[in-house]
Amino acid sequence: MASKREENRDDLRKRLIDAAEARIAAQGLAGLKAREVTTDAGCALGALYNAFEDLDRLILHVNSRSLARLGAALEAAVPPGAAPKEVLLALAQGYVDFALENYQLWSAMFNHRLPDGVEAPEWHREEHRVLIAQIIRPLQALRPDLEGLALQRRAKTVFAAVHGVVYLGLTGRFVGTPREVLPSEVAALVEAMMRGLSA
Amino acid sequence: MASKREENRDDLRKRLIDAAEARIAAQGLAGLKAREVTTDAGCALGALYNAFEDLDRLILHVNSRSLARLGAALEAAVPPGAAPKEVLLALAQGYVDFALENYQLWSAMFNHRLPDGVEAPEWHREEHRVLIAQIIRPLQALRPDLEGLALQRRAKTVFAAVHGVVYLGLTGRFVGTPREVLPSEVAALVEAMMRGLSA
Repeated sequence: MASKREENRDDLRKRLIDAAEARIAAQGLAGLKAREVTTDAGCALGALYNAFEDLDRLILHVNSRSLARLGAALEAAVPPGAAPKEVLLALAQGYVDFALENYQLWSAMFNHRLPDGVEAPEWHREEHRVLIAQIIRPLQALRPDLEGLALQRRAKTVFAAVHGVVYLGLTGRFVGTPREVLPSEVAALVEAMMRGLSA
Repeated sequence: MASKREENRDDLRKRLIDAAEARIAAQGLAGLKAREVTTDAGCALGALYNAFEDLDRLILHVNSRSLARLGAALEAAVPPGAAPKEVLLALAQGYVDFALENYQLWSAMFNHRLPDGVEAPEWHREEHRVLIAQIIRPLQALRPDLEGLALQRRAKTVFAAVHGVVYLGLTGRFVGTPREVLPSEVAALVEAMMRGLSA
């Protein structure tokens, strides 16, 4: 059974993640201040450093939550019994929807950098597998010649292509796809890739 | 004829752009300091603000140069008389090569943000057309049904897909394509898109 002390610590960590998540969702990652987060969480500034070492590690826990929510959203986006092409189209649209609905939290997953020389822990790196996990099976159905590492890499490439269109579109870069045609352009991209993959 | 005063001003602007470009190429955009740039350029700190308003506008001129160099590199990458598919493959490989060889300057083009509320000038937004300009003609050959705005948008989507793979790969995000397979994965993506586009 968890001791009272552990319970308190877990509760504090949860409140800090909640507070940082709410701040990032509202204002974005840039300019996030440790003191604002601890004020929102109702604790002293030093408590953050006790619980998470620093603000960057706390952000990593926020991103960890976002990844889990994205994984669940992608799973929910695929209709049961869908054919491989439908699965890939549904995953891509699920990705666009998640990015549109959770722009700041989604963007924080890709824009957050740990300080120079600090490596992300293995458990967090592993969590990023949700970004490609559901692509692998339908991709293999379309490309039975790919397996193992080559299949994983191609899944990453398919993800990165879709991500690139969403990212340049939503971050408002000058060559970005306008938001209102993002769903249809992503669908066109995935359809072209799928036709090409199975051609 | 340019007055002596104008000549001096143009010379100072060029030295400042040279200095900022060299700093970004060597150390990246993050942590670029106005004082380092002016020291390298051999002028007073205040001269930068006279010549460019602020460091962000100076960076914009560095990015302007990088875009022009990228445009020239893409043009040089396409063999004369190449068929549409070859053109698109050559442009994609030219893009990968440019990003690999000019990582920091390339990355600055996409990571630099003007301060909140400051819009990039129209001439600079326009320069970003080099990113899609050469895609349009071969794309239209493969998709004669697309024209005008729809063709422009599809060219942006094709660019963003390739860019996404290169960007996630080179910025070392957890789901990125490893650098050593970047050229072959980008080629596979473009080939799949092309087969899909013409299917």
